Amino acid sequence: MTTEPMPVDQRLARGARTRRAITRHAADVASLEGLNGLSLGRLATDLGLSKSGVATLFRTKEQLQLATVETAREAFLDAVVRPASDAPPGAARLRALTERWISYAEQPLFTGGCFWAANLPEFDSRPGPVRDALRRQRQAWLDLLAGQVRHAVDTGETTYLDADLVAFQIDAVLTAANTAMRLGEPHPGDKVRRVIHGLLT
Amino acid sequence: MTTEPMPVDQRLARGARTRRAITRHAADVASLEGLNGLSLGRLATDLGLSKSGVATLFRTKEQLQLATVETAREAFLDAVVRPASDAPPGAARLRALTERWISYAEQPLFTGGCFWAANLPEFDSRPGPVRDALRRQRQAWLDLLAGQVRHAVDTGETTYLDADLVAFQIDAVLTAANTAMRLGEPHPGDKVRRVIHGLLT
Repeated sequence: MTTEPMPVDQRLARGARTRRAITRHAADVASLEGLNGLSLGRLATDLGLSKSGVATLFRTKEQLQLATVETAREAFLDAVVRPASDAPPGAARLRALTERWISYAEQPLFTGGCFWAANLPEFDSRPGPVRDALRRQRQAWLDLLAGQVRHAVDTGETTYLDADLVAFQIDAVLTAANTAMRLGEPHPGDKVRRVIHGLLT
Repeated sequence: MTTEPMPVDQRLARGARTRRAITRHAADVASLEGLNGLSLGRLATDLGLSKSGVATLFRTKEQLQLATVETAREAFLDAVVRPASDAPPGAARLRALTERWISYAEQPLFTGGCFWAANLPEFDSRPGPVRDALRRQRQAWLDLLAGQVRHAVDTGETTYLDADLVAFQIDAVLTAANTAMRLGEPHPGDKVRRVIHGLLT
């Protein structure tokens, strides 16, 4: 009996699974220590992989960071955005997004809380592809919120509101609540709920 | 002629000046790269000092971080809080604090923008004296804002507002504006002004 080499498609599938396991763990680490705290060697040790194996999958630290940012986005869409899309658009969906976001930060989905709250401050003054990716994701989130506010205004659910300004405020308060949760301040989730309620009525 | 040793009080004064120069530069570095990006060796190189001299003034990295946090607080008080205290308490002082804060982040006072926006996310999940110091400073700032809101309510300048909630919102929007400035988004300062105006009327 010969030990046949693994077929190419199986090897590719295994590589993709390993890549995902690494970037998912990297997202947890980055939520605590920032994307600059990532190193191929440390991730290999944490996951019981060889450093050379990890280095083959991500040739540079920047490639690892970019792949981690993309994995974080997917996990966020699964935890917050997709489940909330069951709610009707407008005020109801904004409330659903808010509730999902509070759970996302409180549970939390990433060990250190909100991935973007942890990483935007580190990269906002650091031009390059990682900052660009984080900025695109932030903008997509603000656009999603603004679209729901606009819908609430258009259908008469609320009086006139500047959708972009309200989206900016909602995001600001969610991010502040994430900090407050990490610092152990009382009832950040309720603060968010009261602010959103005030904005939408 | 003998070279007399420098008197003790002159040596202490010189030590204090050097300490301040180091921590002021460290606050700039930390506003860009976080307090964990600080190292005694790097600061010594940046400022043309000997590493052993810097190490004598700050025996551990944590002592350097704590001294930096304190220097940042003093600089913030000078730039934002003290000048605004010329305005009468209540709504006028809140507007003065806001304007000073926008300049503080826009100019900016620290190279990387708001010192706390850069460092709270890094330390909020990291128990210890640095997190405690940052948290105390954050709370003092929130209390200052809440006190002015309360004054505005008590003197009938605004209708009833939950002072702590409004302070939380103002701080959230200022911090978000700092991120927006660093990312080059349009008119973050105006967004803050419109939100504060909306909150106080």
